[in-house]
Amino acid sequence: MRVALIGLGRMGRVHARNLAGRCRSAELAAVADADAGMAEAAGAEFDVPWTTDSGALLDDPTVDAVAVATPTAAHADLVVRAARAGKHVFCEKPIALDRPATVRAVEAVAATGVRFQIGFHRRHDPDWVAATRRIHAGEMGEPYLFRTSLRDMKPPPVEFLAGSGGFFVDMTIHDLDTARWMVGEVVEVAAYGTALADPAIGEIGDLDTALVVLRFESGALGVIDNSRAAGYGYECSTEVMGRSATVRIDRPQHRHYQWLTPDGATYGINRDFEERYPLAYAEEMEAFARCVRDGTEPAVTGLDALAAFDLATAADLAWRTGRAVPVV
Amino acid sequence: MRVALIGLGRMGRVHARNLAGRCRSAELAAVADADAGMAEAAGAEFDVPWTTDSGALLDDPTVDAVAVATPTAAHADLVVRAARAGKHVFCEKPIALDRPATVRAVEAVAATGVRFQIGFHRRHDPDWVAATRRIHAGEMGEPYLFRTSLRDMKPPPVEFLAGSGGFFVDMTIHDLDTARWMVGEVVEVAAYGTALADPAIGEIGDLDTALVVLRFESGALGVIDNSRAAGYGYECSTEVMGRSATVRIDRPQHRHYQWLTPDGATYGINRDFEERYPLAYAEEMEAFARCVRDGTEPAVTGLDALAAFDLATAADLAWRTGRAVPVV
Amino acid sequence: MRVALIGLGRMGRVHARNLAGRCRSAELAAVADADAGMAEAAGAEFDVPWTTDSGALLDDPTVDAVAVATPTAAHADLVVRAARAGKHVFCEKPIALDRPATVRAVEAVAATGVRFQIGFHRRHDPDWVAATRRIHAGEMGEPYLFRTSLRDMKPPPVEFLAGSGGFFVDMTIHDLDTARWMVGEVVEVAAYGTALADPAIGEIGDLDTALVVLRFESGALGVIDNSRAAGYGYECSTEVMGRSATVRIDRPQHRHYQWLTPDGATYGINRDFEERYPLAYAEEMEAFARCVRDGTEPAVTGLDALAAFDLATAADLAWRTGRAVPVV
Amino acid sequence: MRVALIGLGRMGRVHARNLAGRCRSAELAAVADADAGMAEAAGAEFDVPWTTDSGALLDDPTVDAVAVATPTAAHADLVVRAARAGKHVFCEKPIALDRPATVRAVEAVAATGVRFQIGFHRRHDPDWVAATRRIHAGEMGEPYLFRTSLRDMKPPPVEFLAGSGGFFVDMTIHDLDTARWMVGEVVEVAAYGTALADPAIGEIGDLDTALVVLRFESGALGVIDNSRAAGYGYECSTEVMGRSATVRIDRPQHRHYQWLTPDGATYGINRDFEERYPLAYAEEMEAFARCVRDGTEPAVTGLDALAAFDLATAADLAWRTGRAVPVV
Repeated sequence: MRVALIGLGRMGRVHARNLAGRCRSAELAAVADADAGMAEAAGAEFDVPWTTDSGALLDDPTVDAVAVATPTAAHADLVVRAARAGKHVFCEKPIALDRPATVRAVEAVAATGVRFQIGFHRRHDPDWVAATRRIHAGEMGEPYLFRTSLRDMKPPPVEFLAGSGGFFVDMTIHDLDTARWMVGEVVEVAAYGTALADPAIGEIGDLDTALVVLRFESGALGVIDNSRAAGYGYECSTEVMGRSATVRIDRPQHRHYQWLTPDGATYGINRDFEERYPLAYAEEMEAFARCVRDGTEPAVTGLDALAAFDLATAADLAWRTGRAVPVV
Repeated sequence: MRVALIGLGRMGRVHARNLAGRCRSAELAAVADADAGMAEAAGAEFDVPWTTDSGALLDDPTVDAVAVATPTAAHADLVVRAARAGKHVFCEKPIALDRPATVRAVEAVAATGVRFQIGFHRRHDPDWVAATRRIHAGEMGEPYLFRTSLRDMKPPPVEFLAGSGGFFVDMTIHDLDTARWMVGEVVEVAAYGTALADPAIGEIGDLDTALVVLRFESGALGVIDNSRAAGYGYECSTEVMGRSATVRIDRPQHRHYQWLTPDGATYGINRDFEERYPLAYAEEMEAFARCVRDGTEPAVTGLDALAAFDLATAADLAWRTGRAVPVV
Repeated sequence: MRVALIGLGRMGRVHARNLAGRCRSAELAAVADADAGMAEAAGAEFDVPWTTDSGALLDDPTVDAVAVATPTAAHADLVVRAARAGKHVFCEKPIALDRPATVRAVEAVAATGVRFQIGFHRRHDPDWVAATRRIHAGEMGEPYLFRTSLRDMKPPPVEFLAGSGGFFVDMTIHDLDTARWMVGEVVEVAAYGTALADPAIGEIGDLDTALVVLRFESGALGVIDNSRAAGYGYECSTEVMGRSATVRIDRPQHRHYQWLTPDGATYGINRDFEERYPLAYAEEMEAFARCVRDGTEPAVTGLDALAAFDLATAADLAWRTGRAVPVV
Repeated sequence: MRVALIGLGRMGRVHARNLAGRCRSAELAAVADADAGMAEAAGAEFDVPWTTDSGALLDDPTVDAVAVATPTAAHADLVVRAARAGKHVFCEKPIALDRPATVRAVEAVAATGVRFQIGFHRRHDPDWVAATRRIHAGEMGEPYLFRTSLRDMKPPPVEFLAGSGGFFVDMTIHDLDTARWMVGEVVEVAAYGTALADPAIGEIGDLDTALVVLRFESGALGVIDNSRAAGYGYECSTEVMGRSATVRIDRPQHRHYQWLTPDGATYGINRDFEERYPLAYAEEMEAFARCVRDGTEPAVTGLDALAAFDLATAADLAWRTGRAVPVV
């Protein structure tokens, strides 16, 4: 499967590297970015054609699929155009910054019949997949407590945050998808936040640290803690507790060695999502290619993106009103 | 220091063992329990006088201090009588099941001038003390996220729960004290609960699993997860995240060995608080004895018990009303 | 770089997968195996030409390099023929089953000027590389104790062992290379062995478990423990102790999650070298391709293979004579 | 049981603290040391009579048992005199610096019928006991590999070493007892040593780091690594590998918390045997008291001390001759 990649920011370059050298069933066909310098550099690095005109890629008959990794504001339009051009679509989360645009994009893609996969990478990480499979197989009984942490080492620039859709839509959305995947549908959300780490974030009315409480349809409880400023490194850890077993997923070490001195034993911590997830991003792209090849449904679809978006906006409302918000 | 122990339930027997053989500065003087059989058995085991009449111990001039480990309903009366008899007092949490009785007891003891220490044992565990000392020394900067888990393996009998004061007053109170100790005063509490694990607990209107969200005076956020039915074992773990460092306290293994087979590597998990805290209960009693000897104030006093009680009742109200409750 | 792969046993298929989908700078050009069925199956799986005549691949002008993963007895001849045909050569360890053949192959390849890399994969594993770099940078001072374990879960078939060159040449050779790489040259070897795990192994005069003691030129000591029958899984762990620091490399978990039940907390153990080294084999092939592209010397050469072979035969002699053997 | 303690060096003070405050079945009766200042200080600290004349304690009819923790050279004489005075005897390892004196002491004590326990503390540590019990119960099948590390952070003063009996008799003896306890009798010993860490140690003909290879009667292999200069801290870890399971005993952390910063996650390491073994020394003294009370045989006797001594001297000979030494 030949994939044209649109958007060469941080996630875009991750996908470029994986398409270029770590996916057996997919290859990088071309790259596009509004910034000609970035497009040219990536074209040279990966030895593929480059362009600043993403539309040209959609018209290219040798392109089977498009991976969209632009800033969020441009996602929905590209997703719809690519699908209508008959390209299968991989899109980073979220699909859009508001619900109507999200719904329109999901419906428009569905009408074309192409494959549509969302970049919730944990759904493809081998550790998460193995643990979740055991939950779904009933090995722990009905879960009744879900707990997860997602934390970045340092906040992104305030300019990025201003266009990100806000804390819950930009960051918590990953955990909300994980919660739905591992435990089931969520019927109520409450949220609490603070901006102690970086005053500039507070000034634009956004958060740097938050707690989100979930009530699942099953009656189970869940809690998400998120921070843009964990300081020590990047963290993504989850625990699910059931009647007969509990599972804990983590991967704290960056490298698997410890350095011992009289000051203690020290191991390196992952600094970012790339270090934390050495395989998940390649796996998700490979899985996308296999779905296209085999005509199967991706593990995480536009409807999943919509459901997570709705939970994220409910969390935002809950935080703003100080009240638990039901989700229908 | 000679200590008379009143109440020989599970915690009482823990204190008896420590007073009898693991505290250099304190010794077990006598034991009392309303159940003559239990009192006699403990007297024989620890080679000390026993009685069913706790009042007799309060009159004994050779007794320097009293440790109260009866069911909660009897705490306040015994505490006040012991203090008025000139005995220093160690009391398990909570002091009473309602606020007026708690306040009366705290004030009555204060009027006598005896030493009064509450059984929040984490304040004396070497791991917790070392970590908290580093926080208070400013090594992590201002904390902005606090997270703690306290979980029992199996629920106690429903009859015990009926007289326990409810989930938050009986169980969460430990974490609320820890939150205050490690991070500072709490100004708002929200709480969410469920009773999925044991239907009988739900029938008496109590919970088996809960999440409590804290907002500290400093603006920091906190979250407590508690369960009476973790299934896999006993857990007590805490994390505090600050600007320049994060600390994690846990102690998952019961014994420090791993058993490796083709099914994996397995280590034993603590089953209860005694296994989790091999030193804390002896240390708290030793610390109490040293405070009495040296005329210093215990690390955790009646006022701390009152503050944690107020937070626990706020959590209970927050849970019942579904709204965050400010704490004055 | 287009690589023809000769030999499609277990290691051969590992290399095929990496060349086909996980190396940016190398691609799989063709496969060969004396077994037509295996060659055909691999050709179909990886969508490349296949043959039973490895000589044909050496004549193919579109092939830049050859990877040799046949049974050991065929290594030396293929290596020399490939080099003389102008192909760069990657070869699994050991180069041959005796010293003269090893020397001849190393010299013959050197005479051609092609790149020649040996499959000591730890030299390319990110964890080992990072730790060793710190040792070489002097961060621990002069090492004085080296300790390493290499263990398989289950012995290979006795037929394989009969042609393997014996325990030390087939298995310990990896650790001997690691010792030289991390700490320096070895001047004396002693060895102790047993065949308790599998009587059939003892009957052919081979071992299933051994200890090898090393004395380094620097005066440091080292110990290697090897077993073909660890039972619980695959293990490869190393410790190096120096004056100012000690480093421990391990990676015990297969997946990064723990499953907690009343029987304990369990994590899965790696079952074989592929699970233990998710990245090293792809990295070594990528590094080989970069050396060819850039005209640089591989990190591990034929001379390293010879040095490790000499240590392995010294260990064999030490075991057979019960005496420490100097290495010149 | 009232215990008189003779010798108030480091181990003596450990025993004093445990007898004074951590053993239910034993109490400290008196202390003696040739150094009047140390004796007086300990007497004051533990509120017991003190003397510089250890003979006086042997005549004291209120003393039930004697704990000998003097320098090794004085052990044997005190042990015999105490036993002949009808006192039960606890003695630190080794009993003497030569075999004849050891044999004479063991025989003389046996003739008196008193209880005689040796200070091999691992035999009483809860972790070691639990793991060894599972081995002895057959849970791993027949062991075939034993591996253990014992390392001090820093060497003791050269003057101490000069009178210590040498590296193997002073240090390795602990591991040799552990090997016999966990796996069984040893029939052959080889040893390799170096003195890289501290030149002064080499100058007196002693070692600071050594490897000892064991062959057990069962055919199993074992390896001990010992160092007086691990640098990073104190280490005592063991692994036993059997056909159906492997056990690993360690306890690397001093406190159970981790401190996370951008430099990594760090936990404190034990600095010495007291930190490593928070319970073993109290347990061994309590076990000794119970043996006396119940008239049972201690878990580790004079004959065990003799067997470990013989292995230690065999290791010394093996090191000096460079050859494996059979043990009869």
